[in-house]
Amino acid sequence: MGTTTKSLKLLDHFSAAQPEIGLSSLARLSKRDKASVYRSLNELAELGFVEQNRHTKRYRLGPTVIRLANVREATVPIKDAVAEPLAQLVSAVRETAHVTLLNGTGLIVAEFCQSRHHGTRVEIETADILPLHATASGCAIMAFADPGLIDRVLSAPLQSITQNTVTDPALIRSKVDDARRIGFGLSDGEYESDVCSMAAPIFDPNNDCIGAVSVACPKSRLDTELKFQIRENLKPAARAISSACGGQVPPTLEEIWKLNDPT
Amino acid sequence: MGTTTKSLKLLDHFSAAQPEIGLSSLARLSKRDKASVYRSLNELAELGFVEQNRHTKRYRLGPTVIRLANVREATVPIKDAVAEPLAQLVSAVRETAHVTLLNGTGLIVAEFCQSRHHGTRVEIETADILPLHATASGCAIMAFADPGLIDRVLSAPLQSITQNTVTDPALIRSKVDDARRIGFGLSDGEYESDVCSMAAPIFDPNNDCIGAVSVACPKSRLDTELKFQIRENLKPAARAISSACGGQVPPTLEEIWKLNDPT
Repeated sequence: MGTTTKSLKLLDHFSAAQPEIGLSSLARLSKRDKASVYRSLNELAELGFVEQNRHTKRYRLGPTVIRLANVREATVPIKDAVAEPLAQLVSAVRETAHVTLLNGTGLIVAEFCQSRHHGTRVEIETADILPLHATASGCAIMAFADPGLIDRVLSAPLQSITQNTVTDPALIRSKVDDARRIGFGLSDGEYESDVCSMAAPIFDPNNDCIGAVSVACPKSRLDTELKFQIRENLKPAARAISSACGGQVPPTLEEIWKLNDPT
Repeated sequence: MGTTTKSLKLLDHFSAAQPEIGLSSLARLSKRDKASVYRSLNELAELGFVEQNRHTKRYRLGPTVIRLANVREATVPIKDAVAEPLAQLVSAVRETAHVTLLNGTGLIVAEFCQSRHHGTRVEIETADILPLHATASGCAIMAFADPGLIDRVLSAPLQSITQNTVTDPALIRSKVDDARRIGFGLSDGEYESDVCSMAAPIFDPNNDCIGAVSVACPKSRLDTELKFQIRENLKPAARAISSACGGQVPPTLEEIWKLNDPT
């Protein structure tokens, strides 16, 4: 692993649940010695990637990441582009929806829209990296991204997140095959035990699957009617979001959706 | 310069004006050889900090920066915190306002609010790094941050951005002294030749000046009445934003504002 990678990997440990981390903890989490972590942190602090809380002496992410995200949004304006289709989807299905982007073998939440229609709803945490094997979005993406992706995902040890998480590579391949057949990825309590999700892939101008749009709802609420509603409303959402990203849902997937159309 | 710093410095070249950069251009911009820039880019791409546009082969910022900005916002929620006071400020003065954060010897735009009251208005570019010596925000921050900051700023060569930009260290010190005396930083066409700005510093829980809130308007519109309006409305904005950041405007600055109070 190169020096840059080692330093930048430190940033992976910061999350909404763990926004500030001390030097010793970072050394332990990264399995590196304190002196070299300290050198990395000094370099990262100098560039504004981290900053030290003067009170607690712990480190947190710094202002540079705000600028970089602003540049990225100006370059590939996903937040703005997905806001409207996401709001329409949520208004139609009355459940929380979100858009994730593929990043290596993980998922980043680009944007979400909360449903305000029920007392209980799924909360989306935008600061987390989501695993592909345990999410409906990941399933949809593995089904429609380049075939090498699923191999890369399955080549690493897979974490069991809930008692429902599928970690057996053969079973994951079979779930992805299902997703390829019906045109949607599904998760049945695999990331949070009481949450079900359905996701459709989204595409960029190169026809690459770059992410997914997903609806998540409490398991208790997912009846046949809601399943139908979610499936039917994910299609226009995936079309609109792909189109806002300069791409389109490929004809092969449109065909799959049509074949499985109950009407 | 360390390897990590060299690699991360590459990210500085990306901006809204230059969102995608090819390998040769990056080598030229960073004054490094192509082979080593290529290695850096590969490492950065592996971690999602950059991605390659398959069509153009040029590089752009990657999705990782979105996640990092989400974590930062969950840790230090500046965008959410400043939205309301910024909107109130804009509604009162009917001109564009923005909040900047100090990052090393540069400024990052955390959030802005556009005025919709005039046909001509100042547009804020959130993807740029703003220089301290040429902005009202920078002037306000140098006046109220730790005294070492102005020395660090003046130790580097200062770029002349418009014909009004002050680059003489002695004159900058005198401008900063003025800001310390009146409690506001001013820019008279120093960053954009036809734009005037006035800024008040904002403070964190450690009483450190971490940034500024600024109103920018076309020079042609800045009469005595508007100057008065901006100054009087920057005070409550700086108080509210500091308070939303967990800090407060220090009594010494409140005293300065009171002394200069025309009423």
